[in-house]
Amino acid sequence: MTTAPKYRLLGQSPVRPDGIDKVTGHADYGADIKLQGMLYAKLKTSPHAHAIIKKIDYSKALALPGVHAVVIGTDFPDPDDTLVPSGPGTVARRYLIGNFMAVDKVTFYGHPVAAVAATSWHIAEDALDLIEVEYEVLPAVTSALDAVKASAPIIHPQIRTQEPLGAVKGEADENGMAETGEMGSSEKPSNVASHLQSVLGDVNKAFAEADIIVEGDFHNDTAHQGYLEPHTATAQWNQDGTLTIWSSSQGVFAVVRDPLGLILKMQPSKIRAIPMEIGGGFGGKNRIYCEPIAALLAKKAGRPVQLSMTRQEVIQASGPASGVYTHAKIGAMKDGTIVAAQLRMLYEAGGFPGAPVGGGLNTSLAAYNIPNVQMDGYDVLVNRPRNAAYRAPGAPGPNYAVESIIDELAERLDMDKMDLRLKNAAHEGAQRPNGTKVGVTGNVQVMEAAKNSQHYRSELTGAYQGRGVAVGFWGANSGTHAVNAQLNSDGRITLDAATVDIGGLRAIEAQVMAEVLGIPYEDVTPRYADTDSVGFASLTAGSGTGSGMSASVFHTAMQIKDRVIARAASIWGVDPSAVVYDTNTGNMSTPATDKEPAREMTFKQLAARQQQTGGYISGHVDLGGATGAATYGANIVDVEVDPETGKVTILRYTCVQDVGQVLHAGYVEGQIQGGAVQGIGMALQEEYVYDDNGILRNGSLLDYRMPTTLDTPNIETIIVEVPHPGHPYGVRGVGECAIVPPLAAIANAVHDAIGVRMHELPATPRRVLDALMEKGDTGVAAGS
Amino acid sequence: MTTAPKYRLLGQSPVRPDGIDKVTGHADYGADIKLQGMLYAKLKTSPHAHAIIKKIDYSKALALPGVHAVVIGTDFPDPDDTLVPSGPGTVARRYLIGNFMAVDKVTFYGHPVAAVAATSWHIAEDALDLIEVEYEVLPAVTSALDAVKASAPIIHPQIRTQEPLGAVKGEADENGMAETGEMGSSEKPSNVASHLQSVLGDVNKAFAEADIIVEGDFHNDTAHQGYLEPHTATAQWNQDGTLTIWSSSQGVFAVVRDPLGLILKMQPSKIRAIPMEIGGGFGGKNRIYCEPIAALLAKKAGRPVQLSMTRQEVIQASGPASGVYTHAKIGAMKDGTIVAAQLRMLYEAGGFPGAPVGGGLNTSLAAYNIPNVQMDGYDVLVNRPRNAAYRAPGAPGPNYAVESIIDELAERLDMDKMDLRLKNAAHEGAQRPNGTKVGVTGNVQVMEAAKNSQHYRSELTGAYQGRGVAVGFWGANSGTHAVNAQLNSDGRITLDAATVDIGGLRAIEAQVMAEVLGIPYEDVTPRYADTDSVGFASLTAGSGTGSGMSASVFHTAMQIKDRVIARAASIWGVDPSAVVYDTNTGNMSTPATDKEPAREMTFKQLAARQQQTGGYISGHVDLGGATGAATYGANIVDVEVDPETGKVTILRYTCVQDVGQVLHAGYVEGQIQGGAVQGIGMALQEEYVYDDNGILRNGSLLDYRMPTTLDTPNIETIIVEVPHPGHPYGVRGVGECAIVPPLAAIANAVHDAIGVRMHELPATPRRVLDALMEKGDTGVAAGS
Repeated sequence: MTTAPKYRLLGQSPVRPDGIDKVTGHADYGADIKLQGMLYAKLKTSPHAHAIIKKIDYSKALALPGVHAVVIGTDFPDPDDTLVPSGPGTVARRYLIGNFMAVDKVTFYGHPVAAVAATSWHIAEDALDLIEVEYEVLPAVTSALDAVKASAPIIHPQIRTQEPLGAVKGEADENGMAETGEMGSSEKPSNVASHLQSVLGDVNKAFAEADIIVEGDFHNDTAHQGYLEPHTATAQWNQDGTLTIWSSSQGVFAVVRDPLGLILKMQPSKIRAIPMEIGGGFGGKNRIYCEPIAALLAKKAGRPVQLSMTRQEVIQASGPASGVYTHAKIGAMKDGTIVAAQLRMLYEAGGFPGAPVGGGLNTSLAAYNIPNVQMDGYDVLVNRPRNAAYRAPGAPGPNYAVESIIDELAERLDMDKMDLRLKNAAHEGAQRPNGTKVGVTGNVQVMEAAKNSQHYRSELTGAYQGRGVAVGFWGANSGTHAVNAQLNSDGRITLDAATVDIGGLRAIEAQVMAEVLGIPYEDVTPRYADTDSVGFASLTAGSGTGSGMSASVFHTAMQIKDRVIARAASIWGVDPSAVVYDTNTGNMSTPATDKEPAREMTFKQLAARQQQTGGYISGHVDLGGATGAATYGANIVDVEVDPETGKVTILRYTCVQDVGQVLHAGYVEGQIQGGAVQGIGMALQEEYVYDDNGILRNGSLLDYRMPTTLDTPNIETIIVEVPHPGHPYGVRGVGECAIVPPLAAIANAVHDAIGVRMHELPATPRRVLDALMEKGDTGVAAGS
Repeated sequence: MTTAPKYRLLGQSPVRPDGIDKVTGHADYGADIKLQGMLYAKLKTSPHAHAIIKKIDYSKALALPGVHAVVIGTDFPDPDDTLVPSGPGTVARRYLIGNFMAVDKVTFYGHPVAAVAATSWHIAEDALDLIEVEYEVLPAVTSALDAVKASAPIIHPQIRTQEPLGAVKGEADENGMAETGEMGSSEKPSNVASHLQSVLGDVNKAFAEADIIVEGDFHNDTAHQGYLEPHTATAQWNQDGTLTIWSSSQGVFAVVRDPLGLILKMQPSKIRAIPMEIGGGFGGKNRIYCEPIAALLAKKAGRPVQLSMTRQEVIQASGPASGVYTHAKIGAMKDGTIVAAQLRMLYEAGGFPGAPVGGGLNTSLAAYNIPNVQMDGYDVLVNRPRNAAYRAPGAPGPNYAVESIIDELAERLDMDKMDLRLKNAAHEGAQRPNGTKVGVTGNVQVMEAAKNSQHYRSELTGAYQGRGVAVGFWGANSGTHAVNAQLNSDGRITLDAATVDIGGLRAIEAQVMAEVLGIPYEDVTPRYADTDSVGFASLTAGSGTGSGMSASVFHTAMQIKDRVIARAASIWGVDPSAVVYDTNTGNMSTPATDKEPAREMTFKQLAARQQQTGGYISGHVDLGGATGAATYGANIVDVEVDPETGKVTILRYTCVQDVGQVLHAGYVEGQIQGGAVQGIGMALQEEYVYDDNGILRNGSLLDYRMPTTLDTPNIETIIVEVPHPGHPYGVRGVGECAIVPPLAAIANAVHDAIGVRMHELPATPRRVLDALMEKGDTGVAAGS
């Protein structure tokens, strides 16, 4: 027996409205805009990881025929310490500007130092060689462990760490983590840009009373989002002093228009940011890179300018995810009750501050109800590219540490690994270390679904095979997403929003609009609008866009429905409350009464009569229509390790996640699968390899090893739906949570397979083989 | 002593927001869009005025290298008799399509019969010669007087005139006007496509009782609007079957999108019509010409296509104003009281029906309170291009007849010409022949302002000099104009509408928004939006756009103001009613109370806090915010006639007009002056010269003599402001009324100068000299 579906369109998988254009190559991405007289720009980048710029002479480059303009860092107004909003956070103007073009010093290999605009790419490239840059090379530091040492070269001498309120001085540990006191000193320059702390209960007292304590150090490396499309921006100045920018980003307002206004000291509304289709972002397009450079070049040249990064520039100089060094310590009673947890996390910010330390504090212990907690997170400068957001920013690294410790704890207590987690699972109302309480949550349901899954209950029989589990959490936001929608005379609805569609947003918009009104999905045309055409849109990030936008569209559709009903009532001369609206068909009717006959009208009939009966109907929503909803997920993974090469092969992979309510089934699955694949990349393959001079040695997709289809198994998904009360349909965030558990799940599976706990990821063949050799197991003996 | 102005910005003349782009050549007009792979189209036109198309063979043209597609009339779906809305009226699909491309017969010289799309204009032009068209040539009729004769060739054999309800059979007159009965016969084919009639009182009885009757026949010729920019359309089909059209027209929805959907049998919302800047329209761009041809060519070719008309094609084959033959008869008592008026008007529709007969009926006697009226108007087919709207369509011709008769009546009664008009002036509440009553009107104020003007009271002293006066009326509409407006974080407002800006609409939008909110004019950016981006916009026509749009913007601004006040109240924790909003500065404040201190916040401060205090604020209006308001005008003109050449030189020209409330002073003056200049063209210079075979002999701007600056005096304006109660600021329509009185005013001035009443316009030197010679005055005698 099957139950009737709750919704006509929600939970289905219709073809996305923008799909045909995308698969036929007609969709316009960042570099597809070509303007009359447009110039092409190229970046000159630093060959050093850390150096002071003594002098830049670009006179010879400017003299090259075909070259129209050169821009260097000092051309940007006032790179001072004023804090300005940029994308999801705020940043000193000095760092915002310095990150995309070095002003006084270079802080990472590949750091842009100048840009040239010329009539062709080739001329621009030739001109780069004619720019003379005089450097004073400084020693480089590319690891947070080295960067916090007293002897480390200081990257930004003006930085003094701000201590958190009520900070506790920690003790140095075996991994060379300096004392908090030393790192956080405000008296002398430091590579620690900030220190965040969360405290709940009395962790020292609880550890003293615990029956068992497990602790360890874990490291996961820098990883790049690996979006398909490199960053591109095209800039054109208009005669009235306004600027038009075409680019692909995760937010036309919050990533492009408003930061660009702050950078160029322009009123943001004098900038029109036009979104192009985006070839992937995953957080990496929450930061501005090409737009200000293209804008300044265009201003100097008096012609439109397009700047497209190369793949190498993207890897070297756009923001990957921070590597994290985590020390985790968990104490429990004999029955498995966890009583205390402590984390210390060193995040590698890169050449400018701003690592996602808060992400680690908010998520790492969120699956559990632990009464005594202390978490310290540090934002540490190193000579790597400044990090950017990457899917659940800050969460995968510490989660890997915590879930490895939980795995170890279960083994030592001889408990089922899901049972230990269920015993300590955070329930609604539980106190969290950041001061909030757990809301309505699917945490327990996710854990139970994992435990009860066929995968978890199945047997592994092969040699060197192992199974790992891990859970993860992400606290989604929701944002505000303005929507303008028009009901056309043919009954079709055009819907405009400036919210960037990365993962199928337009399909969701059409589904929700059509669901509310009872019209065909194909009768809704969702469109991308620019910043002059529609109200503010939050950036597409934080797992909040599907939920936030679906709520905005829901409220817009309800407005239209109300107005359609009122119009029918006015045509019929009845009270709107007398109109019966069939949400399966959009048909309206009134029953027969003593005085009046029954009346009927279809949605399309009413649409056709709009102009003659009071004008066209529209709907508009500006503010947010939902709150963000926390989401929990669990992974079960089976691996087989080749004891001769150290290669880890994934045999089976299952993701369990609470999504509240499925909007588009295919995209929910796809988001979860995509997150898992990126987590697999972090767990097994992806890393930034620097030499002693801070030179990146694997800055291409040939050497930087993202998972291919050959590395990736089929990812099975188990969808849990515990509705979120703050959304009209109960929708939760989906996109990010799925990248949180894979690192730990895979490391735990490797441990299960070969008895070695991986303290460093990615678990490349080299590292796994080293661990096997250290253990004395190199393929001679069989079995895990 | 001067009184303080009522408004801060209304009534001023700020620089238009789109001005810099326009004067520097950066604004994009119809032909300025260039697409990748775009083809260029050319029209093949008919060398005959009236012929049946026997066969079209375009195989040789298609075989020419570089030619990608050919379109002929039968390629368009179903040119049947279904009535479809098009621009301001409805038309049979057969005529709508046939007008821009002949299907089975050509009905005017220059009628397009085929179009070619090729990789260049030159190749397309070469290909035209390779298209073989076999015609059966028919006799042509180019005058309405001939077309209504029983012997006339019938242009559309399927047309049977529909008699109006209660039609009165008239009698044939000396000008060959056939009996209404004959013209209106529904039993046989006719060139009279329709007959409209208005009757009030008993005109025959009143004429029998009148002391004096004056009557006469008058003819004014076809005249072209003479907009600077020829028609252009660019079409691109998208992969999902939707169509994008770039063109300049007077209405993206009503002129382009919706008619195009009906023509192509597509859902209109699958067409995105993008407005380009428009180089003049004056009603001539209320009809669709190039868009369907470009769309079909693009569909056949599988590539974007741009079709631009040449100037010759514009004159030959786009819609000019109808020529009109008017018989006018007015009866009065000895004291000047007009008791009866009768009009018969033959409008030359051109090769397809649809002359503005209603315009004549509604306006010709509107300035007067006449108890007994009969008006008959006929829509007569002739072998000329199908007429289109032209500024006060249908009004100038009959008004020329009526005001000539009034002039004659004043002379015969020996009354001051303004006094006769004032004695009979229509007042508020007077019954009009079309069943409505006169509303709040500035008719009397305009007449009094003319009478009291320095110009009217001045003396004319030279030989062959004369003065004429005339009044005119136009009943403006208002329309619906959707507006979306966003308040940006910098306090500037972006305003989107799809209403076409012809005469400075964006300036008015910024003025009204800034006026309501108390912010600087420069802080409002009005933009042009396409049909997918904003709600329905009426076409820019009918003198209703300034009033309708200013009302829409007013209501949008009021929404924003309310929301801004509510936000300030929410930030301060007070009731919105406690917030004082200064509409001169946009500053908000609350007075100090016992409990609370006084608070202050500027508009910009609030704008900057939007995102953190509840989200961004916007305003949206979809429906109309005003009713249309009738407008009256008067002209005083002094001329001097050269008795040797017949050339009429204008010495002084004054326009008086009631505009309700001035929005932009410069554009109000400019509209009135522009209307007067176009009226001068109709009165003195402009005509379509056809030979006996119906071939147009003056189809270029060299031969078709529009007024130049050398022909045009300074036009003085006297602005009357009698507020219209149906508009928030009292605004009335401005643009069209000014073209109504010039024909009569100039003809009356010529009569005053040389004693000859011109019964045919334009009063070219040839006609004036003929009249002088007939009178026996050829420059020997002096004085008028």
